[in-house]
Amino acid sequence: MSALDILVSRLPDGTVSTDTKIRNERAIDSWTLDLLRLVRGDELTEPDAVVFPASTEEVATVLAWAAETGTAVIPRGAGSGVCGGARAQAGAVILDLTRMDRVGDVDLVSQTVDVQAGVRGDRLEEALAAHDLTTGHYPQSIAISTVGGWIAASSAGQASTGFGAIEDIVLGLTAVLPTGEVLRCRAVPRSAAGPDLRRLLVGSEGTLAVVTEATLACRARPAGWEWLAAGFGDFAAMAAALREVRRAGTGAAVLRGYDETDAQFNFGALGHSGGCVGLAGFPADRPGLEAGKQAAAGILGTAGTGLGTDFGAAYGAHWEQHRNDAVQTYAQVMGPERAFGPGAIVDTMEVAGLWSAVPRLYQEIRSALAAHAQLVGCHLSHVYPSGSSLYFTFLINGADERAAETTYRQAWDQAAASCAGAGGTITHHHGVGRLKAPYLAGELGQAGAAVLERIRAALDPAGIMNPGGLRP
Amino acid sequence: MSALDILVSRLPDGTVSTDTKIRNERAIDSWTLDLLRLVRGDELTEPDAVVFPASTEEVATVLAWAAETGTAVIPRGAGSGVCGGARAQAGAVILDLTRMDRVGDVDLVSQTVDVQAGVRGDRLEEALAAHDLTTGHYPQSIAISTVGGWIAASSAGQASTGFGAIEDIVLGLTAVLPTGEVLRCRAVPRSAAGPDLRRLLVGSEGTLAVVTEATLACRARPAGWEWLAAGFGDFAAMAAALREVRRAGTGAAVLRGYDETDAQFNFGALGHSGGCVGLAGFPADRPGLEAGKQAAAGILGTAGTGLGTDFGAAYGAHWEQHRNDAVQTYAQVMGPERAFGPGAIVDTMEVAGLWSAVPRLYQEIRSALAAHAQLVGCHLSHVYPSGSSLYFTFLINGADERAAETTYRQAWDQAAASCAGAGGTITHHHGVGRLKAPYLAGELGQAGAAVLERIRAALDPAGIMNPGGLRP
Repeated sequence: MSALDILVSRLPDGTVSTDTKIRNERAIDSWTLDLLRLVRGDELTEPDAVVFPASTEEVATVLAWAAETGTAVIPRGAGSGVCGGARAQAGAVILDLTRMDRVGDVDLVSQTVDVQAGVRGDRLEEALAAHDLTTGHYPQSIAISTVGGWIAASSAGQASTGFGAIEDIVLGLTAVLPTGEVLRCRAVPRSAAGPDLRRLLVGSEGTLAVVTEATLACRARPAGWEWLAAGFGDFAAMAAALREVRRAGTGAAVLRGYDETDAQFNFGALGHSGGCVGLAGFPADRPGLEAGKQAAAGILGTAGTGLGTDFGAAYGAHWEQHRNDAVQTYAQVMGPERAFGPGAIVDTMEVAGLWSAVPRLYQEIRSALAAHAQLVGCHLSHVYPSGSSLYFTFLINGADERAAETTYRQAWDQAAASCAGAGGTITHHHGVGRLKAPYLAGELGQAGAAVLERIRAALDPAGIMNPGGLRP
Repeated sequence: MSALDILVSRLPDGTVSTDTKIRNERAIDSWTLDLLRLVRGDELTEPDAVVFPASTEEVATVLAWAAETGTAVIPRGAGSGVCGGARAQAGAVILDLTRMDRVGDVDLVSQTVDVQAGVRGDRLEEALAAHDLTTGHYPQSIAISTVGGWIAASSAGQASTGFGAIEDIVLGLTAVLPTGEVLRCRAVPRSAAGPDLRRLLVGSEGTLAVVTEATLACRARPAGWEWLAAGFGDFAAMAAALREVRRAGTGAAVLRGYDETDAQFNFGALGHSGGCVGLAGFPADRPGLEAGKQAAAGILGTAGTGLGTDFGAAYGAHWEQHRNDAVQTYAQVMGPERAFGPGAIVDTMEVAGLWSAVPRLYQEIRSALAAHAQLVGCHLSHVYPSGSSLYFTFLINGADERAAETTYRQAWDQAAASCAGAGGTITHHHGVGRLKAPYLAGELGQAGAAVLERIRAALDPAGIMNPGGLRP
């Protein structure tokens, strides 16, 4: 009996698929470079099979089998990852979690919800809306990503200033270790009982365990959002204003700052005619809303050195309505062709650093990308008291698809070097994957990379868990 | 040459001490049971030597030597831990970090400060006050504890609702691995570059590495604090009110709730005459202060089912002034005698759970303790949207010191079982130590305990790091 036959014999009928289309569709995630390879007709490495477990116990069966047979397992949610974190390799099986899509108990007293890891973000929010609750976790990918993917890739949503990032939202979790053992971290608001094992799995990209269930913190769903927007003559002034709004405790739950290119791209439809844009969003039903908004308006209005324009609520409303358009466009394109057009690459790079590093991160990464890309825009997507993320979008129009790939790697290499030189981290919320693996050792240092490898070897002695992933 | 002689030869003069008094004073931390043993004259296991490194490099020298010679190393800050996390064992050296007490660069743009791990909390705040900054990290032990101890024991301060707990405040850190390698995690507000290695060391209690330096997030120092306090007829109503104040986003940075016993103990001096007390503290210079206070007052005033008393600002001011008295009293007693008096034990137990578990945690742990203790008080010390910590203080008057110890263990065993039964965690911010080690495996489960042990073995193959600590 082949290894795969053994697995099939241990699971309910229909759990293991070797269908060509199903295997092919799960060979890669949404990393730009793999999509480009697909478009230009490169042969993709397909998994031997795709396994669709329906429960933690079935995941345990799969991992115990994998350890026994030395089969590589690549966990996969909805495949929206943009860094090549989930990618098939020869002889591997893809563990597709999307059948584990149950929204379980809602604890109305604690405002928590139990979910399976394959629940998609939009479905989760629909289920919570019935209770007037929300997780407040709104990644742009919300309609094409899962809870398990959020945890594995260390996700942060658009309203993380108000609701926290995924590590703040995950209170409890269940995961299957590479041995098949089931780890259950009970849901508590905080614990000092040793290193936080929940946090160890955040950002582990399928290399340390498979997250199968979680208890998530919820909050009352805001009745609506109120918005401020202000124009600034330069990026530095805008960044400083958002920093002060964040520090002042104004109650803003969304804070974003667009450079001139990104502002034009995002607000051109409103007739935006130049300059940077700072945006602040406030849940509409919190006490002190007016005072908080006034304080923020004062900072945004007075800190601008250039335009000093008050754009009122229109920009925010526009953003709220269109914030996920890029993903929807992308998802449509993903449909039959999964393409960007011949030789054109659009990609994003989200870094983070302390405020003292932000100006240099902005200038130097933009320059590095601009040396290779035809268009580079940037916005501050997550604003902290101590620093910020910088989210670059860039477009490369290669002479042909081969040249585009070379240019793409050069752009990333130089931008990553600029990020490291300025003291930033190479990823704020997209994760590492195959894309950023070459830069990981530089960021973690020799000792940090060694710690990661030692932990991986200790938890996964058979080396079965996403073996090509998260390798410094 | 003895192992110790080798160490002495590798470090500057005066770094290694074998002085009897110095070794004796660092044999234990401030765990009640070890203090009791001290009082009754039990012989303590002293370390072979105490090492006082002045730099990360010297710590690396010590750990490389320890790995080479198989010597156990027990890292120690100021010794304020109350769970027996830092305790000498035969043949071990104590690594006393208090000589590493330098407050380094303050980055005024990012509002961060670089510190060595041995910096004491009150000294740190003094240094930051010169810049009108604060970490906002105010554990009751602030005058007798260090930054490294906060990280090792997973500390949370009294104002964590507003400023976060230690894991939110540590942006960067340097640590020495058990191999002598130096791990440097750069200071960033957030990163998705793999599992967060900073977080791995929070709560690791000296078993995985020695934290030697950190970059901490600061905030503007509040100009002052404003207070609300309300009386409640029962604990459940008070808890529910604080929960709603927390969820409403009122800007309260301190939220505490005292049961009748604890209220009497804390506010008796003000003529408090019965009932529970809910306390809310607001930094005085935040926008929306008045609106936030009004909203909180509405919730506190209307949610009370019993007394419904408005205690105004006096209770808060009293708490602010006296909040660390217990530690000061304790520190004085620690001086010549380090004693509580014959056969009397005072201890604290801080657990946490979801709001749906809070009533049961309160009732059942209190009952378990009260079966053995003469006095049991409780307050909610850290209030979250999803749950709360419960901080029990109890007094056992044993017939003699032997009997007191037996009673103490019985009280802890039963209270810990009640905590587990109600779904709580056995520690919110004091850590595990020798005290709670017997309950750790039950909390983490078999797989969780195995993960912890595998990580420990992977990072510390020589088994030198605080070998008796954090053992599930």
